Amino acid sequence: MRLTCKFSVLSYDSLAPKKMQAPRLRYDEANVRTIPVKTASAEYSVIVGNNILPSLYRRLAPYVGTSGRRVFVITSPQIWSLWSNSFLASFPVDTQPTVLFQPPGEQWKRFAQVERLITEMISAGADRSSLLIAFGGGIVGDVGGFVAASLMRGIDYIQMPSTLLSQVDSSVGGKVGVNLATGKNLAGAFHHPKAVFADIELLQTLPDRELRAGLFESIKAGIIRDAKLFRFMETQRDSILSRHAKALEQVIAASIRMKAEVVGIDERESGLRMILNLGHTVGHAIEAATHYRKLLHGEAVAWGMLAALEIGRARGTVTTAQAERIEQLIFAYGPLPPLKVKAAAIVEATRRDKKNRAGVRRFILPAGIGNSVVVENVTDTELNSSVAHMLTLVRARR
Amino acid sequence: MRLTCKFSVLSYDSLAPKKMQAPRLRYDEANVRTIPVKTASAEYSVIVGNNILPSLYRRLAPYVGTSGRRVFVITSPQIWSLWSNSFLASFPVDTQPTVLFQPPGEQWKRFAQVERLITEMISAGADRSSLLIAFGGGIVGDVGGFVAASLMRGIDYIQMPSTLLSQVDSSVGGKVGVNLATGKNLAGAFHHPKAVFADIELLQTLPDRELRAGLFESIKAGIIRDAKLFRFMETQRDSILSRHAKALEQVIAASIRMKAEVVGIDERESGLRMILNLGHTVGHAIEAATHYRKLLHGEAVAWGMLAALEIGRARGTVTTAQAERIEQLIFAYGPLPPLKVKAAAIVEATRRDKKNRAGVRRFILPAGIGNSVVVENVTDTELNSSVAHMLTLVRARR
Repeated sequence: MRLTCKFSVLSYDSLAPKKMQAPRLRYDEANVRTIPVKTASAEYSVIVGNNILPSLYRRLAPYVGTSGRRVFVITSPQIWSLWSNSFLASFPVDTQPTVLFQPPGEQWKRFAQVERLITEMISAGADRSSLLIAFGGGIVGDVGGFVAASLMRGIDYIQMPSTLLSQVDSSVGGKVGVNLATGKNLAGAFHHPKAVFADIELLQTLPDRELRAGLFESIKAGIIRDAKLFRFMETQRDSILSRHAKALEQVIAASIRMKAEVVGIDERESGLRMILNLGHTVGHAIEAATHYRKLLHGEAVAWGMLAALEIGRARGTVTTAQAERIEQLIFAYGPLPPLKVKAAAIVEATRRDKKNRAGVRRFILPAGIGNSVVVENVTDTELNSSVAHMLTLVRARR
Repeated sequence: MRLTCKFSVLSYDSLAPKKMQAPRLRYDEANVRTIPVKTASAEYSVIVGNNILPSLYRRLAPYVGTSGRRVFVITSPQIWSLWSNSFLASFPVDTQPTVLFQPPGEQWKRFAQVERLITEMISAGADRSSLLIAFGGGIVGDVGGFVAASLMRGIDYIQMPSTLLSQVDSSVGGKVGVNLATGKNLAGAFHHPKAVFADIELLQTLPDRELRAGLFESIKAGIIRDAKLFRFMETQRDSILSRHAKALEQVIAASIRMKAEVVGIDERESGLRMILNLGHTVGHAIEAATHYRKLLHGEAVAWGMLAALEIGRARGTVTTAQAERIEQLIFAYGPLPPLKVKAAAIVEATRRDKKNRAGVRRFILPAGIGNSVVVENVTDTELNSSVAHMLTLVRARR
């Protein structure tokens, strides 16, 4: 009662159709799951499994067709040095793709790289019928997707995410784009891939810190909409962190399923899709205030979820017991690197959040475990106090 | 018969639904016509009339709404110096828009300007609910539209074209974008405006050369699909060139109607919309080969139409009499500035045309007057010979 009397709260239940069904899983062969994504403007499959790379060319056949379509790959030097042999092995000798490189790091996720990559692709013979594969982490996916969206006003592309974060989050849903000097992801497009191939095998070479950073987005998926995933991550922590393929597959498939369902209902983030931004208001602000240098995205989101959790706890959208359970799960997938940033800098940076509308700042709050609410009336005082609380946790964990 | 035996020709009749109807004109008041555009993904109005500017704010009301939506204007310094007083006069003192400038010239139609404009808009408080007005010629419309497409992955915008070319062509249909160093319009998006306001009054300050350049696109509209417009431009040449408002309105409305109809049937240029590219294969090549410095776009298209006409004449898609009539009409709206460029440079530049698919070069040819065909089998010999013929005309007109 306190909730409805005291605050204008938009619960996700009020945004979603009542008789919603989770997309069904189809199995096309051992160890490979196909999760369908169906939005207002696009329909495609996310293929999740272990060791997909050796059969990549065969799996691309439906997208390449027989019409002499040229294939281009945008990747990072690091991923390519690890996986190029496996990647190219499945391609016939006479149809090898053209490979282009995106330099690693958020500072290169900019318009200048998009322009360079488009220019290089066209110089190498790309036209509107070309197919692009974005093979790498979130930056490669975002930049590669924006290249595909913009090259001659749009060509087909495939996401082949190589990090956990990009597998569970950025490769699905069609959001692509670049940073500005003044903020992250402030320019871009909605451009859905024709397919997503999430190969769990690729995660075996992922640095430990990046694995954990990605898992924070899966924890987010559990908090906002999937209590079963949340519990699985509580009980299977050791298997997940030691990269048991089955445990990772379970986490990744559940995270993608959740995202596919949300994006299917609200493609353009006019309602339900906003819940995916739990932890992102403060998370993005932390990244901006630390110039994208100190934290991985997932780590900033983890801190941001702790701040949102504190607002939720104070407002009563979560009980103290639930808040503790969520906090414990987040720290169980740590350590989170320390933060040296002033509360005022974070609060200031939230003013530029993309979710804001005509000056109104939006927040996603957990509503128990497995549900969430969107609120528009978080005061500066509340925000200050939640950021202060978060910074206390930062200091306590040092 | 010769046509069907000798060449694989795709006529627009085979691309368009059989029972096609031209969009109906609605009149909302004296001297203002509303032409509806309805595509697979968007629905909006083109408002054509004389002296729309003084009532602009009232006309924007349906798009601005009452929710405190911020209004931004991207314009050119030249247009703004001529029309800012009239533009701003209709806005209440407390809701003046924020104005940003795009420098004039194709060399500034680049990613770097899009990035700068997005950054400036966000610094000035733009968010996803902001409304952008692109007020200027084709470059302002293309860059402004791409800014609207990309800012936070897409905001609403309005086209307010100030040149004849942008009124009859680029402001309708949602094609927006930028040039690369290596070619024109090679990057961009499909992003439809919420409305287009084509104020004929703005054309009174348009340099004579630009007026004529724009009229070549209307001639194109007549050739490919509107024999009545073609005849009107033959008989009313003097009224049109002396800018009688009624004559211009007739030409502009007919051109927009034609484009609205074509774009409504084929939004993404997978079929019928290709006919709008009559003259553009060689036209773009001329622009690229002369580094976008010698000719206005409409002038390059005029030369390109003469080249396409020569291919059509040789193939028999137009009779010699029709070819002469078309040639005469084009020259009646001249003079066309001379060209100093080698045939080989033009032919080479056509290889990078956006309409090409997997190495196949597409051409639009006039099929009589008021109809057109898309062909894919223009040989290098035919192209060379048509460009040589065009260059002969260039020399003859010097």
